[in-house]
Amino acid sequence: MLSRIGVHTSVDVLFPPSVLRDALSDVEPTVEIVETAADLDECDALVTFSYDESFLDADLDWIHSIQSGVDRFPFDRLERRGIALTSSTGIHGDSVGETVVGYMLQFARRLHVHRDNERRREWQFPPWDAPFTLPGESLCVVGLGTLGQGIARRADALGVDVVGVKRTPTPVEHISRVYTPGELQEAIADVRFVAVAVPLTDRTEGSIGADEFGVMREDAYLLNVSRGGVVDDSALLDALRDDELAGAALDVFETEPLPDRSEFWERENVIVTPHAAAANREYYRRVGALVRENVRRLDANETLANHVV
Amino acid sequence: MLSRIGVHTSVDVLFPPSVLRDALSDVEPTVEIVETAADLDECDALVTFSYDESFLDADLDWIHSIQSGVDRFPFDRLERRGIALTSSTGIHGDSVGETVVGYMLQFARRLHVHRDNERRREWQFPPWDAPFTLPGESLCVVGLGTLGQGIARRADALGVDVVGVKRTPTPVEHISRVYTPGELQEAIADVRFVAVAVPLTDRTEGSIGADEFGVMREDAYLLNVSRGGVVDDSALLDALRDDELAGAALDVFETEPLPDRSEFWERENVIVTPHAAAANREYYRRVGALVRENVRRLDANETLANHVV
Repeated sequence: MLSRIGVHTSVDVLFPPSVLRDALSDVEPTVEIVETAADLDECDALVTFSYDESFLDADLDWIHSIQSGVDRFPFDRLERRGIALTSSTGIHGDSVGETVVGYMLQFARRLHVHRDNERRREWQFPPWDAPFTLPGESLCVVGLGTLGQGIARRADALGVDVVGVKRTPTPVEHISRVYTPGELQEAIADVRFVAVAVPLTDRTEGSIGADEFGVMREDAYLLNVSRGGVVDDSALLDALRDDELAGAALDVFETEPLPDRSEFWERENVIVTPHAAAANREYYRRVGALVRENVRRLDANETLANHVV
Repeated sequence: MLSRIGVHTSVDVLFPPSVLRDALSDVEPTVEIVETAADLDECDALVTFSYDESFLDADLDWIHSIQSGVDRFPFDRLERRGIALTSSTGIHGDSVGETVVGYMLQFARRLHVHRDNERRREWQFPPWDAPFTLPGESLCVVGLGTLGQGIARRADALGVDVVGVKRTPTPVEHISRVYTPGELQEAIADVRFVAVAVPLTDRTEGSIGADEFGVMREDAYLLNVSRGGVVDDSALLDALRDDELAGAALDVFETEPLPDRSEFWERENVIVTPHAAAANREYYRRVGALVRENVRRLDANETLANHVV
């Protein structure tokens, strides 16, 4: 039975610690905002954005990451200390799905270029053969987890033919054909949009690179919401320079924040969002719901939801 | 039986005259590009964007407008000369519908602000409580013709609760409640988005003004694709200045092009698109299909599709 849950001040990157604390006012344990290692001593659980070495020395039973990605946590050492780690995977399907169909509509309806023109006070109709509509167009979603399915459902609803790539190529709702990772190039060769939404692993790192851009259509758009490293940024830039692709919308980069000198910033056909595809004012409520459920499970001695180690 | 159809060079605003001529290569009459009044003499039908007085003196039986709006044509005088006028209404539901849900996603996912930041090479995460997702949000579509239905279908598909305003309040697919024009203020008072998609008529001119902005929610967005004059631009600007609304996406204005000095250009929470919501590289094909159908109907002595006078 937990007695005290800390909300680490690092969650402030995504929402004020106090709103999560207040959202958890109905759970049995005390919930308090913690900032220093000393504050940690009283806690047996911690909800956090960042990882700090001091977490290992505190007497914690459980750490919950408010992000889906947990690669910054030292799994082995946590396990040795008997500290359970849980993630916030599974709560971003709608926010990321909407951001990605937003990218598709920006490209199709030229909304990004209209915004550029607006800032210059330029009333400029697009070239007659530039704007298009989504029905009849196609999308390949690489990775069909929560994010990929959130993208696929919405693109399908807007009339796009959606195919996908998935380790186990079993049928998935909204996906007309599921390919294996070995068939990646075939899957992306003939579509208008490629959305990359796989976790960063040894297998996926650098898996979208020069060879993949080489097989894509010249009028295709790459949409990336995978963690930095899945897409080879420098190969992508080469492909864009050589007009091998029509454009890209990128939420994540190998180096973040994106360096000031990066050419990605200045290209009209590149849409940059600052790792904010999942940003959502409801984020804290969803994290709160995960924490509440795991408080219940710990109490009932059940397996934790989103258990990592 | 028509012998010669002219494609007026004014269509060039939306597509090259030659692509429409070529798309109509299968019809019985000769199709030729016409530029001057002299060229007109040989034609008995004309496909055009703009109106010119010389059209009245030519020996035309039929004029087809490549736009939906035909208010620039002199109905009475055409009728007296026995010249039929047809419009291109009904072909813009998908393009305008996509543009409007694109506006909604720009506001919800902050894509317009990310674009501004991109142009300044600023990596800036949005305020935690600014981005939202569409499910659970609501939209009122004022006007449920082709455009309004195109908007409603797509918003519904993305999980938005859609209500609408229509002269005859009969049930409409994708609309959970249909209001009459007399109930306009009730219809728009409690929604997150108001999309205006009514034709410009004596009844609708200035119908979205200070009183309407006054009843709307402070976190509401106005999305306007009606012809200029339906929305009172100066009342809208006042409402935006006074934070009575969260923002607006505007495709049309009372004065076009939007004057360089207009405050609409510079407001971060105003998205300006240059009367391009319907822009589509397939536009000429759809106009071609309408013209082809009416060539058939003229030949068969049937009532013309999209007949105006």
